[in-house]
Amino acid sequence: MIPLVIRGGLVFTQNAAREVVTADVLVKDGKIAAIGENLPADGAVKAIDARGLFVVPGFVQAHIHLTQTLCRGLADDRELLPWLKDRIWPLEAAHSAETSHTAARVGIAELLTTGTTTILDMGTTQHHDAIFEAARDMGLRYYGGKALMDQGEGAPKELLEDTDTALRTAEAQKQRWHDTSGGRVNFVYAPRFILSCTDALMRKVAERSRADRVLIHTHASENKGEIEVVKQITGHQNLRALHELGCLHAGTVVAHGVWIDESEEACLVASGAAICHCPGSNLKLASGVADVPRLLKKGVRVGLGADGAACDNTLDQRVEMRLAALLHRLQHGPTGLSAQAVLDLATIGGAAALGIAHAIGSLEPGKRADIVCLDPGFALPSPDPVSALVHGATAANVRHVFVDGIARVSDGELLDVSLPALMADAARDQRRLVERARIAR
Amino acid sequence: MIPLVIRGGLVFTQNAAREVVTADVLVKDGKIAAIGENLPADGAVKAIDARGLFVVPGFVQAHIHLTQTLCRGLADDRELLPWLKDRIWPLEAAHSAETSHTAARVGIAELLTTGTTTILDMGTTQHHDAIFEAARDMGLRYYGGKALMDQGEGAPKELLEDTDTALRTAEAQKQRWHDTSGGRVNFVYAPRFILSCTDALMRKVAERSRADRVLIHTHASENKGEIEVVKQITGHQNLRALHELGCLHAGTVVAHGVWIDESEEACLVASGAAICHCPGSNLKLASGVADVPRLLKKGVRVGLGADGAACDNTLDQRVEMRLAALLHRLQHGPTGLSAQAVLDLATIGGAAALGIAHAIGSLEPGKRADIVCLDPGFALPSPDPVSALVHGATAANVRHVFVDGIARVSDGELLDVSLPALMADAARDQRRLVERARIAR
Repeated sequence: MIPLVIRGGLVFTQNAAREVVTADVLVKDGKIAAIGENLPADGAVKAIDARGLFVVPGFVQAHIHLTQTLCRGLADDRELLPWLKDRIWPLEAAHSAETSHTAARVGIAELLTTGTTTILDMGTTQHHDAIFEAARDMGLRYYGGKALMDQGEGAPKELLEDTDTALRTAEAQKQRWHDTSGGRVNFVYAPRFILSCTDALMRKVAERSRADRVLIHTHASENKGEIEVVKQITGHQNLRALHELGCLHAGTVVAHGVWIDESEEACLVASGAAICHCPGSNLKLASGVADVPRLLKKGVRVGLGADGAACDNTLDQRVEMRLAALLHRLQHGPTGLSAQAVLDLATIGGAAALGIAHAIGSLEPGKRADIVCLDPGFALPSPDPVSALVHGATAANVRHVFVDGIARVSDGELLDVSLPALMADAARDQRRLVERARIAR
Repeated sequence: MIPLVIRGGLVFTQNAAREVVTADVLVKDGKIAAIGENLPADGAVKAIDARGLFVVPGFVQAHIHLTQTLCRGLADDRELLPWLKDRIWPLEAAHSAETSHTAARVGIAELLTTGTTTILDMGTTQHHDAIFEAARDMGLRYYGGKALMDQGEGAPKELLEDTDTALRTAEAQKQRWHDTSGGRVNFVYAPRFILSCTDALMRKVAERSRADRVLIHTHASENKGEIEVVKQITGHQNLRALHELGCLHAGTVVAHGVWIDESEEACLVASGAAICHCPGSNLKLASGVADVPRLLKKGVRVGLGADGAACDNTLDQRVEMRLAALLHRLQHGPTGLSAQAVLDLATIGGAAALGIAHAIGSLEPGKRADIVCLDPGFALPSPDPVSALVHGATAANVRHVFVDGIARVSDGELLDVSLPALMADAARDQRRLVERARIAR
């Protein structure tokens, strides 16, 4: 691969000192080789003119449902449990490999063109290989796996498997996909949530994830109605129940954590499990607001994510950043969550939640070259560029995106993909899903 | 002017039936002449291909501070009163005619390129002619006027005038600017808020606005600390105090209305005054959430606005729409404020708040041709295009913007303005403001 130099941008390093510097970024062999002024370019080097641009670590979203991308607009204005039972599960059950592939491609196209380079993805029961294929081919850094569901009131039969089948097919998926594409595509265990999983499944997942050093990705403590049902069934608060099953550990990422009591907070701290904050989704489903400032104060690792297109309607991390920067002021006042803290959630914090902060999440020599160049638009970068980025990024245009040093978006255009053709596929496959799912439109 | 036809887009008419239709829009002499399929184009007609685009009424923002555009990033993370006293007032006092002009130009550029075609603007005490000039020249539909301030603890002397001077200079501004540029540029009385205005000033404004049929634009009930001070001084709740002074009537727009008790609600209903909801600003300054669903149920006219760049950091109405669609679910559940209700706030509701719903706010024959064409991006328009627009518009690209049928944005580019040069002016003039204001950076 020809070395690449990104010249003269305002580099948000997100290093330990959180330095923001005007500098060149030299990329060699998919990694950041150096950051500095007037970097010499030995040998043939491709140069990108980034003067006037913000150069930031590719955003990391620690909770996404690519499979739901085609459900956008089909499940508005419901709370979690009716949202799942009346809409999302029937729609997920209607997926074919083809529609899954389209859903993933559309979702990845949106993610890359809005600056997200890494996701932790929750699948559905079937056809997850199609999603791995899309991630492999489109160049996103991907952690995900099929949803594991071996019980569940109201779930269609297509989504339910017996415990052994769920574990066996997950294992096969791990064999096929974990640590592939040079480490860019990875398998994770995805027990959907306590109400979808028997204790036996949860305990096996806990065991295997520790043995294999593979992440667990699950949901908990999102909605008060859900929590009530979990408590009736398990006798415990949601995170306490996960903890009892062995499912909370340093390799676990729990989406949401909106309603966490002190004993659950203690479970998080003791286990080292991470939370993914999804402010847009939590508002759309009228779930509530996770107390992120408190979790951060307790030392819990926290990432940020858009969740799915069916409960947030856009997968743009910049929109979530802005929301996170504003929302916590309701409870914590105008210094509730600083712009810097929000940028951390969106980059290095998300990387830490996934256990890969050594490799991505900041722009530092030796790290993978996952880099986004943004045109700041109407933002005035001085005196506080981090505020300008976090509060103004919705207006910024994503100009260039690199993953492992490979250009995926150039001059605002997604490379190698025709967006009009892709959106036509999306419209067609959305119609197919609706017809098969027989939901009212 | 050559007639214009916008062909084949998905037209969000916002008419009484809220029809969304695939149609052509014919524009003649600055007005919408017809909406329908395969409209005949008699004579020479300029055609815009809008197939695949959303065609929407230009957004109406019922509360903006153009003068604060250069204060972006200079006043983060404060509540209202310290935000005003420590930052905003010193910065406003530092304005020259030149920096005011730059602030307005940058703000208008952002507004037009994000689809806003009409604003109600709050000025500062001095140099407001420069803002009228920018609005006149850049083609925005503009309602605004100098801020009236004849008292106020903590306000710099440059912002304070005696009552007669305030009224006399306002009157002169009205003479120069009201109903100019073919009715596109208009003067309004802008008594800043109760704490900045003597009773004598308020009563005179109330009298003149009724006699002249000119709007009043003011702030009230934004922040609990502000409300406490108002109560100490006037003995009344904020809106009740305005009502007693005669300042609430059918031509009054009150920004915010976050904390309104039942007696104040009764004042709004009795007087016919309108509220402008500013969800982003109200979160950023940690003020709270206005109960918009309740106000709408009571029949209060409500508009939507970004407020200023110093308390919201972006002037993009699409960001406010998305926030309004999500935020009220915390109190009112998942059907708190429908996508349609939010689109109404952003278009016809804002027009009604300004008393100009007969002329703008919807796409109907006879109305002014204030039209925006958006590329829906990753939105899937079916089955609910209004949801797709409201929840997905942050990702949509504004392609074309017309005001009075005149193109102001074409193929995503602001016409007749060099953005790089304008942003260089903005950076220079922001530095000047900071130096003159002697605020800590």
